[in-house]
Amino acid sequence: MQHTLNDIQKKWIDENPYDFSDLKALFLNCTLKKTPELSHTEQLMKLSQKIMEAVDVETEILRPVDHNVAFGVYPDMTDHGRDKDAWPGIQKKVMAANILIIGTPIWLGEKSSVATMVTERLYSYSGKTNEHGQYSYYGRAGGCIVTGNEDGVKHCSMSVLYGLQHIGFTIPPQADAGWIGEVGPGKSYADKGSGGPENDFTNRNTTFMTWNLLHTARMLADNNGLPAHGNQRSLWK
Amino acid sequence: MQHTLNDIQKKWIDENPYDFSDLKALFLNCTLKKTPELSHTEQLMKLSQKIMEAVDVETEILRPVDHNVAFGVYPDMTDHGRDKDAWPGIQKKVMAANILIIGTPIWLGEKSSVATMVTERLYSYSGKTNEHGQYSYYGRAGGCIVTGNEDGVKHCSMSVLYGLQHIGFTIPPQADAGWIGEVGPGKSYADKGSGGPENDFTNRNTTFMTWNLLHTARMLADNNGLPAHGNQRSLWK
Amino acid sequence: MQHTLNDIQKKWIDENPYDFSDLKALFLNCTLKKTPELSHTEQLMKLSQKIMEAVDVETEILRPVDHNVAFGVYPDMTDHGRDKDAWPGIQKKVMAANILIIGTPIWLGEKSSVATMVTERLYSYSGKTNEHGQYSYYGRAGGCIVTGNEDGVKHCSMSVLYGLQHIGFTIPPQADAGWIGEVGPGKSYADKGSGGPENDFTNRNTTFMTWNLLHTARMLADNNGLPAHGNQRSLWK
Amino acid sequence: MQHTLNDIQKKWIDENPYDFSDLKALFLNCTLKKTPELSHTEQLMKLSQKIMEAVDVETEILRPVDHNVAFGVYPDMTDHGRDKDAWPGIQKKVMAANILIIGTPIWLGEKSSVATMVTERLYSYSGKTNEHGQYSYYGRAGGCIVTGNEDGVKHCSMSVLYGLQHIGFTIPPQADAGWIGEVGPGKSYADKGSGGPENDFTNRNTTFMTWNLLHTARMLADNNGLPAHGNQRSLWK
Repeated sequence: MQHTLNDIQKKWIDENPYDFSDLKALFLNCTLKKTPELSHTEQLMKLSQKIMEAVDVETEILRPVDHNVAFGVYPDMTDHGRDKDAWPGIQKKVMAANILIIGTPIWLGEKSSVATMVTERLYSYSGKTNEHGQYSYYGRAGGCIVTGNEDGVKHCSMSVLYGLQHIGFTIPPQADAGWIGEVGPGKSYADKGSGGPENDFTNRNTTFMTWNLLHTARMLADNNGLPAHGNQRSLWK
Repeated sequence: MQHTLNDIQKKWIDENPYDFSDLKALFLNCTLKKTPELSHTEQLMKLSQKIMEAVDVETEILRPVDHNVAFGVYPDMTDHGRDKDAWPGIQKKVMAANILIIGTPIWLGEKSSVATMVTERLYSYSGKTNEHGQYSYYGRAGGCIVTGNEDGVKHCSMSVLYGLQHIGFTIPPQADAGWIGEVGPGKSYADKGSGGPENDFTNRNTTFMTWNLLHTARMLADNNGLPAHGNQRSLWK
Repeated sequence: MQHTLNDIQKKWIDENPYDFSDLKALFLNCTLKKTPELSHTEQLMKLSQKIMEAVDVETEILRPVDHNVAFGVYPDMTDHGRDKDAWPGIQKKVMAANILIIGTPIWLGEKSSVATMVTERLYSYSGKTNEHGQYSYYGRAGGCIVTGNEDGVKHCSMSVLYGLQHIGFTIPPQADAGWIGEVGPGKSYADKGSGGPENDFTNRNTTFMTWNLLHTARMLADNNGLPAHGNQRSLWK
Repeated sequence: MQHTLNDIQKKWIDENPYDFSDLKALFLNCTLKKTPELSHTEQLMKLSQKIMEAVDVETEILRPVDHNVAFGVYPDMTDHGRDKDAWPGIQKKVMAANILIIGTPIWLGEKSSVATMVTERLYSYSGKTNEHGQYSYYGRAGGCIVTGNEDGVKHCSMSVLYGLQHIGFTIPPQADAGWIGEVGPGKSYADKGSGGPENDFTNRNTTFMTWNLLHTARMLADNNGLPAHGNQRSLWK
C-alpha cells in the first residue's frame, strides 16, 4: 500500500524546520503472519514510516514472527537451554534506535502473543544501565500502532505504552494510533472498501503520533538523554 | 506522616543543579475519603511532594471528593442542568500546573470511581487548543501514584497514564509508583507495621518518578512546550 | 426506542419451553446522564429487557446517577459521615434480582465513573454471607452491556464481568454485548443513521447474552443456588 | 511440592456428597519455562489438581511451551504454511474436558505470551458449533490461576476469564486464584520463605475456585450443557 499524503501532511514535511537526520526509528510489527503474508497493521505503520523517511529519519520495519525468537525473560535464551534465539539481534536494533514503535493486531481484545513476547524480551534487558547509570532505555521515545476489525485499540495501547514507559521510554502525547471498523467481524484495515486508509481520525492520529515521537526524540537527543540526576539506578544502594 | 529521606534522596536534593523554581505541580488525590480522613494514597504522594518542595517547585495536594464535582463530560456541568459543579475551579489549577500527578486507591483491581470521574472531566477539556493550535494539555508532564493492600498497581497505572498521554500529557520514563502488600486483605500503606513507608522499591520508584517528571517538565518548559509542528489540531482540516 | 425483533428472536420467544416467571432482572444503567436525557446505552439495554419481559421475567432499568449515591466502600455511607446515600435502596433491588446487568458508556476507553462507583458499592456488601454460609451474591447471574462511538467494549466488559464474578456472580457464556462505530468520533448507538440498532452482531450478542443469563439463572434457582459445599466462607476459619 | 490440606479442605473432600467421577479437567500451564524447569504457577495449580483428584476427577497439567505450538488464528497452522503445529493435539484435550484452567505467570503486569498464544488458538476453534448448534465451548466451566512476585493477578485474570466466557465457557463465582508477594522484586510462590504456600487467602481462593468449577461443570453436564434455546448460532441467519 502506498499512502497518499494530504495537503497538511505534505505541508508539514515540506516546511519542516528541524533536522532529524541523525535519528533512527525501529518499527516492530508484532503480527502473527510471516512475511510475505499481508499484515494490515504493517500497512498503517507504513504511513508513519513514510513521514519519518520524508524528514530523513532512518527507519526499519521488522516482524519478530519471521525470526526464531525464544520465549523467556533473559537477554539470550540460548544461555538458558533454548537451541535458538533470534532476539539478541533484534535487541541490538532496538538499542540503536531513538524511536521504537510497536505494532500489533487485536485478538479477543488483546495485543498479540508476539507483542507480548516482544515486551517480555525487551523487559529482560531493562535491568541493564547506560553510561549515566540510568536504565538502558532512557533517552528514547516509544509509541504504538494497533489495528483490528472490531474493538480494542485503546486496551492494547494501554498495555504497550505502559510497558514501554515502565522500562524507560518517554511517551509523547498522543503516542498511539490505530484503526478498527464498526463492532463485529468485518473488513480489516487494508481490505478494499474498509474505509481504513481514508479514515481521517486514524490519519490524523498517526500523523500527530509520528511528529510527537520525532520532537520528543529530538529533545532527548539534544539533551544527551533524560538528565541523569535523581534517576541513576547505579547510585540507589 | 513525615517521610524521612535516605542518603541518596538527600544528596540528589542537595546537589541539584537545576532551577525548577518556576514549575508548579498539582497532585489530585482521588481517594474516596473526604478530608480529614486518613488517605493512604496521600501519604505516599507526600514523599513525591516533599522532594518537589525541596527543589522549590510549588505544589498542592487536592482531593476532588472534598468538592461537589458533577458527573459528566462537559467543561462546566452547570451549563448542562447540574446545580453545582466544582470542576471548573479544579481545572484552572490543572492548567496552571506543569506537572499533574493522579493518585488513586485500588478497589476490585481498578482505579477509584473518583479517579475515573476526574479522567472524564479532564477529557472534557481536551478538545480545546492552546496558543500554538495544539491540544491544550501539550507541554505538561503526567504521572501517577497508586496504593492498595492487595493487587493492581500496574493495571491502575496503565489506565491513568494512558488517559493522560491521550489528552496531551508527556509521560516520562517510570512515571508511576505505588505500594501493595502481599496478596489478600491486610494492612494499608500508612498502617503501623505495613512495611509500606520502608519499602525500598516503592521509595525508589517514587523518587525516580518525581525527578523524571521534573526533568521532563523542565525540558518542555524550556522548549516553550512540545514543538508545534505536525501536531496542530487547528491546522488539520 | 422500540426494538423490532427479527424472525429468530420472535421464534425463540414464541417457542420458549421454559418457565422464567419467577425470575427478576435488574439493569443498572451507569450512564453519566440523568433521566430524562437520552442514554444510548439504555436504548440497547431495552432490547435485552424486551426479550426478558416477553418470557415473563420481572425487570427494571435504573440509573444510579439519578440518585444520591455516595462514594465509599461501606454498605451505608451515612454510617460513615455522609449526609445522604441512596445506595442501600438500590442494593435491596440487587439482592432481590436473579440477574444483574450493568450497562455503561465508554469514556477514554474505560467504563464510566458511575459504573466504577456501582462496582465499589456492590463490593462493599460482598463480605456478607447468605443462609448457606456462601458470599451473598452466589446463585445469581451477571452480564453487561456497553456502548460508545469509538472503541472499548471488550475492555469495559473485562472489568465489569471480572468484578461481578469476583464477588459471587456466575458469568454465563457470551455475557456481554455492545455497540461501537468505526474508530474516531461519530454517531452514538441511537443516533439516526448510526447503524447501531440494525447491527446484526450487536443484536445477536444481546440476544445470546439475554438467553444465557436466563438459562444460567434458571439452573441456579432450580439448584437452590450454587451448591454450598467447598465454598462456605462461614466454615473457612 | 506436596500441598498439605488443612482441616476444612480435608473435611470437604471426605464429606463430598457429589459424584464428579465422570468429569475431566485440563490445566494449561502457560509458563515460559519448559519442563523440567520449576514453574511456580504449576505449584499452585497442583493444589487445585489435588482437590479434584481427591474427588475422582480425571486431571492433566500440560505446558504448551513444551510443544511446538505455532502462532496464528487458524485451527491447524500447518494448513497455513507453518511446518509444525502441536496445537490440534492440545485442542483435542480441551474439547474432552469439562473444566479448563489456564495458569499464567505475570510479566510487566500482563499474562504471559504463551497464555496469549493459547487464547488465540482457543479462539481459532470458537466459530465451530456443537451438536446443538451452539458455539463449541458451551457447556464447559473455565477458571484461572496466576502467580507473580509483585503485582497483577486481577489484571491477568480479567483477560483470561473474559476470553474464556467470550468463546463459550461459563465462569463460576470466584473462578480465579493467585499469589503475589509485596510490591517489588522478591520471592516467587514456591521459593523457600515466600509465604506463598501458607497464604490463607490464596489457599481459600484456590479451594473455592476448585469447588465452584466442579459444581458448575456438574450442573452443566447434568443439563446436557447450557440449554440450547436462544443461543444457537446455527439458527441465527
